[in-house]
Amino acid sequence: MSDISALWNARSVAVIGASERPGALGRKPMDYLLRYGYKGRILPVNPRSEQILGVPAYPSVRDVPGPVDLALIMVAADRVLGAVDDCVAAGVPLAVIASSGFAETGEEGARLQAEVVARARAGNMRVIGPNCIGAVGYENRVMATFSPLFGAEEVPFEPGSLAFVSQSGALGFGAASLALERGLRPGWVVSTGNDADVTALEVLRELSQEPSVSGLLGYLEDAPDIGTLRALAGSGKPVALLKSGRTEAGGRAAASHTGALATDDRVLDAALRQLGIVRVDDIDELLDVARVFESERRPAGNRVAVVTTSGGSGILAADAIEAEGLELSTLEPQSKEALAGIVPAFGAIDNPVDITATVLSDPTLFDRSLDVLIADDSVDIIVACFCVMAGPDVEKAVTSLAKAAEKGGKPILVARTGADFLAPDAPRDLREAGLPEYPTPARALRAAAALWEVSRPRTALPEASVGAGTTGPLPGATEPELKRLLADAGVAVPRGRTVTGPDDAVRAVEELGGSAVFKAVVPGLLHKTEAGGVEVGVTADGAALAYARIAALGGDVLAEEVVGDGVELIVGVHSSDLGPVLTAGLGGIFTEILDDVAHRLLPLRPGEGAEMLAELRGAKVLAGTRGRPGVDVAAAADVLHRVAELVQDWPQGFSLDLNPVRVLSQGAVVLDAALTGPAATASAEATVEATAVPAAGGAR
Amino acid sequence: MSDISALWNARSVAVIGASERPGALGRKPMDYLLRYGYKGRILPVNPRSEQILGVPAYPSVRDVPGPVDLALIMVAADRVLGAVDDCVAAGVPLAVIASSGFAETGEEGARLQAEVVARARAGNMRVIGPNCIGAVGYENRVMATFSPLFGAEEVPFEPGSLAFVSQSGALGFGAASLALERGLRPGWVVSTGNDADVTALEVLRELSQEPSVSGLLGYLEDAPDIGTLRALAGSGKPVALLKSGRTEAGGRAAASHTGALATDDRVLDAALRQLGIVRVDDIDELLDVARVFESERRPAGNRVAVVTTSGGSGILAADAIEAEGLELSTLEPQSKEALAGIVPAFGAIDNPVDITATVLSDPTLFDRSLDVLIADDSVDIIVACFCVMAGPDVEKAVTSLAKAAEKGGKPILVARTGADFLAPDAPRDLREAGLPEYPTPARALRAAAALWEVSRPRTALPEASVGAGTTGPLPGATEPELKRLLADAGVAVPRGRTVTGPDDAVRAVEELGGSAVFKAVVPGLLHKTEAGGVEVGVTADGAALAYARIAALGGDVLAEEVVGDGVELIVGVHSSDLGPVLTAGLGGIFTEILDDVAHRLLPLRPGEGAEMLAELRGAKVLAGTRGRPGVDVAAAADVLHRVAELVQDWPQGFSLDLNPVRVLSQGAVVLDAALTGPAATASAEATVEATAVPAAGGAR
Repeated sequence: MSDISALWNARSVAVIGASERPGALGRKPMDYLLRYGYKGRILPVNPRSEQILGVPAYPSVRDVPGPVDLALIMVAADRVLGAVDDCVAAGVPLAVIASSGFAETGEEGARLQAEVVARARAGNMRVIGPNCIGAVGYENRVMATFSPLFGAEEVPFEPGSLAFVSQSGALGFGAASLALERGLRPGWVVSTGNDADVTALEVLRELSQEPSVSGLLGYLEDAPDIGTLRALAGSGKPVALLKSGRTEAGGRAAASHTGALATDDRVLDAALRQLGIVRVDDIDELLDVARVFESERRPAGNRVAVVTTSGGSGILAADAIEAEGLELSTLEPQSKEALAGIVPAFGAIDNPVDITATVLSDPTLFDRSLDVLIADDSVDIIVACFCVMAGPDVEKAVTSLAKAAEKGGKPILVARTGADFLAPDAPRDLREAGLPEYPTPARALRAAAALWEVSRPRTALPEASVGAGTTGPLPGATEPELKRLLADAGVAVPRGRTVTGPDDAVRAVEELGGSAVFKAVVPGLLHKTEAGGVEVGVTADGAALAYARIAALGGDVLAEEVVGDGVELIVGVHSSDLGPVLTAGLGGIFTEILDDVAHRLLPLRPGEGAEMLAELRGAKVLAGTRGRPGVDVAAAADVLHRVAELVQDWPQGFSLDLNPVRVLSQGAVVLDAALTGPAATASAEATVEATAVPAAGGAR
Repeated sequence: MSDISALWNARSVAVIGASERPGALGRKPMDYLLRYGYKGRILPVNPRSEQILGVPAYPSVRDVPGPVDLALIMVAADRVLGAVDDCVAAGVPLAVIASSGFAETGEEGARLQAEVVARARAGNMRVIGPNCIGAVGYENRVMATFSPLFGAEEVPFEPGSLAFVSQSGALGFGAASLALERGLRPGWVVSTGNDADVTALEVLRELSQEPSVSGLLGYLEDAPDIGTLRALAGSGKPVALLKSGRTEAGGRAAASHTGALATDDRVLDAALRQLGIVRVDDIDELLDVARVFESERRPAGNRVAVVTTSGGSGILAADAIEAEGLELSTLEPQSKEALAGIVPAFGAIDNPVDITATVLSDPTLFDRSLDVLIADDSVDIIVACFCVMAGPDVEKAVTSLAKAAEKGGKPILVARTGADFLAPDAPRDLREAGLPEYPTPARALRAAAALWEVSRPRTALPEASVGAGTTGPLPGATEPELKRLLADAGVAVPRGRTVTGPDDAVRAVEELGGSAVFKAVVPGLLHKTEAGGVEVGVTADGAALAYARIAALGGDVLAEEVVGDGVELIVGVHSSDLGPVLTAGLGGIFTEILDDVAHRLLPLRPGEGAEMLAELRGAKVLAGTRGRPGVDVAAAADVLHRVAELVQDWPQGFSLDLNPVRVLSQGAVVLDAALTGPAATASAEATVEATAVPAAGGAR
């Protein structure tokens, strides 16, 4: 048993601050542990009581005989340090500190919180919280929480396979109550509050290792740790996260709530997509996605067939398929033939398949149509839509669906647009048949898209070594130095060299074919063009004068060949909360006005460079359009991969800009390169002489 | 009583095809009329029965004594014509044809449908359907439907102020059942099926005239009629529409379902925005919006204050405010001061105002904070969030909210993220207090945005006269002719004239300042540049040769002044299902690659030209960016308004392209103009001589 898994595996739970007083928060976990039948040892701690609700109490956790797997601390903030010391002394491996009055209240609270964590760590104890509402591991009835949810008269709780971890306790247990109301079965609900030691993400990672967990849901406010995120994704279990503070306004509110800083939201989006983690925008969506995570069926592709009893639902489903980036399956000819023999003449045998309300008089219509779709190799996911239908009709439809579902391994989702009062048993019957149910086609298709997102085949993400290395260019490496590194990495740069004086400038222009670009090489001068540090179209005649003008800026002068026309990209590698991020976009208005860039965490997987370029809104510019020929997209993608590999061993915190990278009809050339950021450890590679940059395209 | 309003006002209802057989569709309306207590005359028609369920029956509707306000026809398709004839003979003003087997089944059915409509029209009878599930006007218990919804054991129906009209019967009554389950009160539910005569939109327009209707909801598959849409919007009642077939895939499905053609979806989006009609994408969203339509409170602006008991909900609300285009209100200093005296120290007095779970021990926190927000002039809408809270705590919160709601006229929406089993009375209590309730902040904010959309002040939309006129340019009007019309309308065009020969070409260049643009004027030649019909930078030296080259294309040669640099727009007026549409976008990649255009139905309201330009993703290019100065956006907007006015009296079906319109640092000039489309009636304006185009900017 890991330390954290005591949240659901503890064989003994101490409740520090337990109380018998009706209405007291300290009474609730006692009530719940007793009411829900916790089978381990319940250990109330209260110096003023001999027993609590009939259970023998202890003055301190130090007095408890035998091991304490989990302590729930519910005393006032000023007594938490003492309780932590007691737990450490008693050898408790994990404490949940429910008490509030810590970092969420300001600086003083933050200092107290830091001290709590320091003492716990010194004592080898992990801490959940503070400022949380506790945790429930329902399989073993570990009810270490004071949430009012479990005090309701009837709580429709039953052990299930979903795990839900929320930084916000109120929102987390609120969402959990909605989940129960909607017939979902969360078996684990954990709130982590201020995440002072153990984070919500760590708890999710731990839960992903539990064999009986089928899907993981999280609500996060703090920026996630990339290592934990990778490990979570690596578990192979489906994960959906609601990360708030997405917008600027939300970010501000998050900062004032728990001291969390909003990470760069777009980078997080990209990272989650890379990792195959679903990101949702609302609690409702989280619960809708959770419903497909209860089943272990996975689609082999994104082609959806719709079978509907109402034309209206069919159209809405088709709309939603397109909106969600799924594909409306084109049925095989033999399927249409078969359907033509099943579906009434006024129905539709093209996807969406409309079996019409005739299903009311002939319930086998559902079975038979579903059989056809299950056998059709062009169908990966089936969505069955039906509208207002009353009791027995719904039962028949559900029986049909359940029969069909047993036959094939394809996921079948149900959109039943009708009230439960028309068919009170339908939700239970559908649940028992393993058929996730939604009230509208749009919601079913959103869940189908999430299911595809977590099922899509991905090559394993390489271990991140970026930022861990110690080699790399010197801080303030110059353009020629960087270009030499790029060339060594197989990235094309313009042919050229530094020139040593007016006469050498003339010679250089002649070597470069009679026309050249002259550029200032001045450490720290980032905006060369604006400073007059770039002259294009320099001929032998003008070379001496151009040299003089640029040398006057105080540095070296670089002469480079003129590179032909093409499409310009900007490429960069920058630091983020999640690690180094590769960014690529088209130059000009695409980045300046439209913010049209793609991000990927490093390292890149094979194929991700091309994927990045394809997801740009301006991708058509690269592919060619309206009389303009396309450029060498493969070469551009290759640059991304080589740059990603090049920086792999560079130390943390640098910022590399390749702007522009010109993509030609054949090849792609980095025209300019600049590095900013903290000092790197000196390395042999960085001290290259900048006099022998190889020819464009030569090294690839 | 209008003909259509018989759907809810009928004092007598004939059920043609009424039956007593259990399970028969023809029995259901009889059951419902009796069960729900219809107070008018129930008139079953069945040639084989003397009475149905104890109500005297008639062999034909012709035999019914006294007026029949509404006939529900439920016989098989092949007997519908006869029933229609009977109704006409009996002077029935409105028939609902529930029977299917018409246009939805193919050509033969379509012919039968056309015949039904023709006979009804000849007999002055309006028809709803065919292929529908009927209608319910609950106020008078007009239950002219066979929907299974009303046969359920307990139907939580009570007369309410929402009206819902759906082309799809199954989806419509399915959605209505969900509405009832969620505590909404639809008082009118109408399905219109194939919309062969009366359309769903007409029924909505009719309902908008009912004083007791507070809000209108529609599900449409067919392209809406713009006149009806305008009349509906003109009622001042809030309207939300779900129009399916939004995507290409959905459009195809719609076509196969009811023969509907998907209209240009983006134009519909623009039109609905102009009209202040909310467009939703899902049934769920339609019902969420409906909830705010039950109240008559309207916000004066879009600034939202959030008061929350959970920090998590507050952040999610702030995220949603930004995502929905609303504004997180900046509270007045005195409000913050007042809140500082109310909110606990570990809460937040900045919006979102976090009153924390302390509200459990001090319920007045809610009242007092709300009082401050209601008094704050920088707050237009209040969203109150609370999470899992059990019975009495919820009751207290609801009481607080209700008290606050009574005080101010500001809309207050509630996001209660907690199951009903925790507080079974909460939904009812909130409903009775007039507080719309949602399970998550995101859904509450989506509804708030819809409420603002229907409340936003709009100048009345001018009556559409476009396309009605008979004057306009000749078909195939040439560029000089069009430019003359534009100039007369006050739109700047380049100074220039047609030239008559090589010598005149030289003179023209000299007149135009020594440099000119020569263009071919060849009727039917639309792609001048590609055909070599444009030469720029023509000097006096080259004028004769340029003239010869262009004249060789077979038409006139136009010489124009060179216009300075600027930003290029494309502007066009084209036909659509909804009438002529003005389109504007930035030239180049913005339209070629990014499809970045704005649309408005004509005529334009004051200010809409500027609005169009502002909503372009590339708007920053006009405003100026990164060292590039802005251009004369006001002049560009002025061009849009003048063009809109110019085409006002042109006949239907033309297509006018102004490409490019160059926007300068001062002024905006139409550089090229082309007209395609069907013949216009000859008019004096169109026969202008194209020899005296005024100077750029001169006419404005």
